[in-house]
Amino acid sequence: MSTPSSLQNLIDALRVLPGVGPKSASRMAYHLLQRDQPGANDLAHALMHALGTLRHCRDCNTFTEAEVCEICADERRTREQLCVVEMPTDLLMVEQTLAYHGLYFVLMGRLSPLDGIGTQDIAFARLLERASDGVVQEVILSTNFTVEGEATAHYLAEMLRARGLQVSRIARGLPVGGELEHVDPGTLAQALVERRKL
Amino acid sequence: MSTPSSLQNLIDALRVLPGVGPKSASRMAYHLLQRDQPGANDLAHALMHALGTLRHCRDCNTFTEAEVCEICADERRTREQLCVVEMPTDLLMVEQTLAYHGLYFVLMGRLSPLDGIGTQDIAFARLLERASDGVVQEVILSTNFTVEGEATAHYLAEMLRARGLQVSRIARGLPVGGELEHVDPGTLAQALVERRKL
Repeated sequence: MSTPSSLQNLIDALRVLPGVGPKSASRMAYHLLQRDQPGANDLAHALMHALGTLRHCRDCNTFTEAEVCEICADERRTREQLCVVEMPTDLLMVEQTLAYHGLYFVLMGRLSPLDGIGTQDIAFARLLERASDGVVQEVILSTNFTVEGEATAHYLAEMLRARGLQVSRIARGLPVGGELEHVDPGTLAQALVERRKL
Repeated sequence: MSTPSSLQNLIDALRVLPGVGPKSASRMAYHLLQRDQPGANDLAHALMHALGTLRHCRDCNTFTEAEVCEICADERRTREQLCVVEMPTDLLMVEQTLAYHGLYFVLMGRLSPLDGIGTQDIAFARLLERASDGVVQEVILSTNFTVEGEATAHYLAEMLRARGLQVSRIARGLPVGGELEHVDPGTLAQALVERRKL
């Protein structure tokens, strides 16, 4: 007895999802076929529709259905500041702070030599071109504080400074409400090094 | 800034997958759009194809592309034994043992009152009809040894015995290679109760 080919194809196809191995893929396929065929149909159409309509914003590289995304098209935003983030979700997180009114650039990734992701695979050239438009004064590097995010920020800082742009990095330190007793030593050390004059 | 609607639709649609919450769905959507658009396209087509071609075997209720599945159509199988399992994956597990040569019936679920799954939602009526064909002599209940699987087996045993069929249940006990020191007390207690004469 072998699994019917269209079922096996579906199981194999589900493995493109991140974190989904053979067991999960099989469980997902049976769940969809047995308990939620309308949901499976919606998923297929949502995939086709997203693939057909989504593209990258001409200016900031995030996903959008228009040529230019809502933020880049918003004339009330400060055009002298450019916040560089790794992913569209990071952009949404910064927006939720309501503390930033400039523009963005979404790298759609990070330098990660171990995964074979080098400077050619990230939109670095487009960022350099975007930042050199003569209007942008400051580039705020908001990549993650992971090894890859830090390496990306370091690399970008060198390239951008070489073009005469002011480059900054979001601050590391204790979180709001954070207690010294519960913070990891690395974060506390950074908070000491990057202490502010009062 | 809101997420583009086709992206938000895709994120929502991915939540039909079991164990996928809003965060995972968002991660999956970005992964597909950014790193694996061909994979996303394949997934959409695999879903449509599976929904279009798969149906339930007329005899055993498992997923198949034909009217009758390979096993039910195989004339070398013993037609006097019927092994009842919860899901098609359970059927595949039994097949892998190479120790069973009879036929199957796949319930496509289990009794689970807490999830609102009662006797009407499982193919009980079809099983009773199938088992009463005059050829089947023994029904081997191979549902899981979970609370739901046990309840299902108990209920089925009563119904099938009332129709004069011989009903058996797969054995509980220590696994092959199992050591008393490492087995849970419940399993060991069952192994004692269900001890075999030598």
